[in-house]
This record gives sequence, C-alpha cells and structure tokens, in this order.
Amino acid sequence: MSTSLIKLNSGYDMPQVGFGLWKVNNDTCADQVYEAIKAGYRLFDGACDYGNEVEAGQGVARAIKEGIVTRSDLFIVSKLWNSFHDGERVEPIARKQLADWGIDYFDLYIVHFPVSLTYVDPEVRYPPGWENAEGKVELGKATIQETWTAMEGLVDKGLARSIGISNFSAQLLLDLLRYARIRPATLQIEHHPYLTQERLVAFAKREGIAVTAYSSFGPLSFIELNVKHAEGAQPLFEHEAIKSLAEKYGKTPAQVLLRWATQRGIAVIPKSNNPKRLVENLDVVGFDLKEEEIEAISALDRGLRFNDPHSYDLPITIF
Amino acid sequence: MSTSLIKLNSGYDMPQVGFGLWKVNNDTCADQVYEAIKAGYRLFDGACDYGNEVEAGQGVARAIKEGIVTRSDLFIVSKLWNSFHDGERVEPIARKQLADWGIDYFDLYIVHFPVSLTYVDPEVRYPPGWENAEGKVELGKATIQETWTAMEGLVDKGLARSIGISNFSAQLLLDLLRYARIRPATLQIEHHPYLTQERLVAFAKREGIAVTAYSSFGPLSFIELNVKHAEGAQPLFEHEAIKSLAEKYGKTPAQVLLRWATQRGIAVIPKSNNPKRLVENLDVVGFDLKEEEIEAISALDRGLRFNDPHSYDLPITIF
Repeated sequence: MSTSLIKLNSGYDMPQVGFGLWKVNNDTCADQVYEAIKAGYRLFDGACDYGNEVEAGQGVARAIKEGIVTRSDLFIVSKLWNSFHDGERVEPIARKQLADWGIDYFDLYIVHFPVSLTYVDPEVRYPPGWENAEGKVELGKATIQETWTAMEGLVDKGLARSIGISNFSAQLLLDLLRYARIRPATLQIEHHPYLTQERLVAFAKREGIAVTAYSSFGPLSFIELNVKHAEGAQPLFEHEAIKSLAEKYGKTPAQVLLRWATQRGIAVIPKSNNPKRLVENLDVVGFDLKEEEIEAISALDRGLRFNDPHSYDLPITIF
Repeated sequence: MSTSLIKLNSGYDMPQVGFGLWKVNNDTCADQVYEAIKAGYRLFDGACDYGNEVEAGQGVARAIKEGIVTRSDLFIVSKLWNSFHDGERVEPIARKQLADWGIDYFDLYIVHFPVSLTYVDPEVRYPPGWENAEGKVELGKATIQETWTAMEGLVDKGLARSIGISNFSAQLLLDLLRYARIRPATLQIEHHPYLTQERLVAFAKREGIAVTAYSSFGPLSFIELNVKHAEGAQPLFEHEAIKSLAEKYGKTPAQVLLRWATQRGIAVIPKSNNPKRLVENLDVVGFDLKEEEIEAISALDRGLRFNDPHSYDLPITIF
C-alpha cells in the first residue's frame, strides 16, 4: 500500500500519512515500527523527547535487514529538544539522535518548540524534559535565529535533508522567514476539528511550507495525560458529525478525521497499537469527503488547544 | 483630577488612564487634546499611522503655553510604523515624529505591529499605511531583533524614555526577551471582555511588562471600519452583564468596562469626542467592582479579535 506524497520546498517528497511515535512505549516500540513498515508506513515521526529513538531505530534496522525496505524508502523525522537550542548544541545532539536511530541522516529535523531551555548533558538526563531535577523550568538564552542558523548547518552537512518547525505561531514564523537562509520545509502543529487553525494553515501554504497535523483525534491523546479540558471535551470518535460520515462511507471515525485533514492538504501522523487500526489509518486517501462535509467538520472549530505547556502546569506561555 | 500611575520597568511612571488618538479627526484633534488636558488627561497615545501627530502636538503646545501643564506633566506615547522597521530608519522617523509633535522626547515609543514593510519615504506618502500605491502589501526584510536593537538606540539617545511593543503574541515576546538589552516597558494589545487574553496578560506581568488595553469597548471601534464580525457581535454597552453593573454602581457601561480592565492592573486609552464622556472615562478608578463581578465580565471571553490585518482583507497573518 502506498500513500500520496507531498513535495517539500527542499525538493524532497514526504509521505502524507505517517506513524507518530509520541507515547509509543519503549518495550513495544521496535515491534510497532517493524509492523508499521510491513503494513506500508514509510514516514516515522520521532523526537528526542519521546524517549524511544533507540527502539524505533531497532524496528527500522530489522525491516531493512529483512529486505522489506531500504533506508531510502523511509522518511525519518526527528526533533530538536528545547534543551539543545544553543547554536553549538544542535549538531552534537542531532548526531547523537542519528546514532540512536542507527542512521546517518534525517529526512526531516524539526525545532520541537519555540522555547529555549538551559542545556542538559545527555549523560546526566536524557531525554531532558521540561523541568530540571528540582522540578523547575529554566529558560535558556538562545534566540530562535541562533537555533535556526544551527539547523541550517545540519542541512549543509547532510545530517538533515529538510528542516522544519513545530508549535510556532504565525508571528514567530513571519519573523523566522525574514532571516532564514533555508526556509522551513514543514510546520507541525496541533490540528483537529476543535482546533483548525485556518489562518495559520493558509499562511504556511502561501509561503510554500507543508503543514503536518499532530493529535488529529483531538482530546483523545490528552485524557491519559490528565489534561483537564480534554476530559471535558466530547470525544471526536463519538461526535455525531464524525460518526455519521463514518457510517456513510463505511470507514472508521479515525479514517474520517484523517481524511478531513489530508483533503485539506495536510499531512498526518496517527499512531495505533492495534494492527488493524494501523492499516486503516494508512488507508485514508482512498475515499473522498464532499466539500460541504469537509466544511461541516471544520465548523466544529472552538480554538480548543490541548498541547500547551500550561496544560501540564508549566509556567511557559507560548499560545 | 488625577489618575493612578503604573510604575514601568524603565523606572518611569505611566498614567493608568489615557486618551487614545486612533481615529481622532485631523480637524478636531488639536482641540480634543487641549480639552482632554483641561479635563485631566496626561497620557496621549498616538502613532505615525493615526496621521494626526501634528495636530495632537498643537493641542499640547496650546495647553503648555496657557500654563495648564508642563511637558513633564504629560506622558506622550507614539508608535513606529511597519514601513520603518529597518534598523537605519528607526531614528530618523522617530525624530520626524518628535518634530511633528513639537517635543524632544517620547515618554514611550512602541513597535506598532510585528510586521516589517518596505520603506516608504515620508516625502512621498505619510503615513504610509499597509499598502503601497498599487494596493499591494510589500513585506520588508527587517527582523524584529534588528528593529528592537534600533529602538534601544532611541533610549540611549534620550529620544524615548521607555520603549514597548504592540500586537505581539507570546512566542514572539518570549523570543524578544532573549535578545533585548532594554526590555519592553509595555505591551499594548486589543483587550475587552470578548478577548481577555488571560495568559498573555499574566505572562507580561510575570516578566514585569505593563499591559495597555486598546479597543476596551470591543466591537464598537470596528463597526465603522466595516469589520464584518464586529457587526455581528453584541455591542458591549448593550450587554446585560455590563448594563446591570453600570446601573448598580451608577456609572456608564464605558466606565464599567474601563474599571474591569484597570482593576486587572491594565492601563486603558479610551477616546471620546464628547466632553462629558471624556471626564467620565477618566473617572474609572473611583469605584471598585467585586471580584466575582470582574470574573463574570471576564467570562464573556470568546477569543473574538477585531484588529487583525485579515479583518481589513490584508494578506498578513499574525494571529
């Protein structure tokens, strides 16, 4: 099974549907990645912060060793954590993350948050997380320009083919575009029917930046993290607007949510622990919602954001 | 009549209630400023873009000449327009604006929007506005850091006692704080019960930055500008939550709205063409809303923003 591709401004093609590694457990991660490759997944969206890059790399290595795919068939994404924003920290940590994966380049390497935290030696604590050993957030001094310049250096050295950003809002992206020598290829944002971010998505498109949605299923990912306003929001899988379309097209609610995004030109990175769901989630370009159905889903927008440091009681305001 | 003062991080005191010069007509501006000074106003919030700095300065000059106030009694605010973000353009335009006012320093000079537009020679078009002669928006190349560094130079030269920002969102402010040698003294934002921006306000306060609210009366300012969603929003002066408090305290709805903001520690800059209203608007620290009444007004928040380039069909996304 193949998925459609998005042409990035870097010249490379990115699969529109991938597998997201956030909250994938270490003990099952290698198998899940391996099974996902067998099921047809080619894009894997990882990050330092997810704490499972070694295991994800093991899954990749097994699939390559068995001849299921070659490295060039895959599109491996990782992210720069906040603790490594200082210019001189970017390349060393990218090299460590590549070593963890067991590969020699990332297809896409992303600034995870527009937040600089003080450096943490990976020998001391890895992944470093938001808080120091005393439970305090220590902001760093690196400007986004300093970090982005170092990200561009990764492209120059062949360590990343494309570079991108995540959790950036429009103003900061506009500023970045003024100094970027290499423009971001992608912008990864929280995106679901309760948070459609129409203007930010349109802005990125105007600027030739591909948008990747995370948390496409909305509150679902956040309930287990005790995010209070996620508990109070109606689950999208049970929302009549989604359920009725799932029935109409003989698809799952998850497939409807993913198709809504992909028809809007947005890439998606769902995850599932269930082999059947894994295949279903990949099969979301084989049916089309009608324009008015897409709009009806978009009309559920309530500006409801879950993945915000404030949701985790961190004293950092970025939204 | 005196109003309460806010101590800025620059060491200067700023009146908490001032007179906003946006949309004050050129033919009445000098008189309005003069009358406002007589009524007790000491802070005047102007901008290149308002196109009335010459006339505002005439009103100030008359009041000083007549011995009603001295320059040091006044707190004069102006703003850097988008077309002058290039580092080398900041000081010349600030000097021109000072000459227009007929003064030799601003108490506060503010970056009006986090948007750099290409330079326009003031001899050719002034104020330059958002669009060029062909009706197109031409983005400039100045980063916010370049602009802010030039703003700091104004403080060094005594042309501005304090410097600030306007229409910045949290991420860009966070980035600016990493490179600022002189921190912004104030953040001026759209703020009314339909757009309370709780987290941005709290963030600014944590960082010791005073917040000034503009458009305290919500949709009212925007209906005459044909902003569609302002026409659809219930006028705050007619909102039961505001009207009932006005009746209870024997104040106008405007006074209730301004008191709600000032009790939250926010500065306000209403304007009025009506002498009676002018006095009323200044008299908003002489009564106190109860905590639960403040919360009830804050609960009207709907994230409804009017002053956005998109409201004027400009293809610039900053929110």
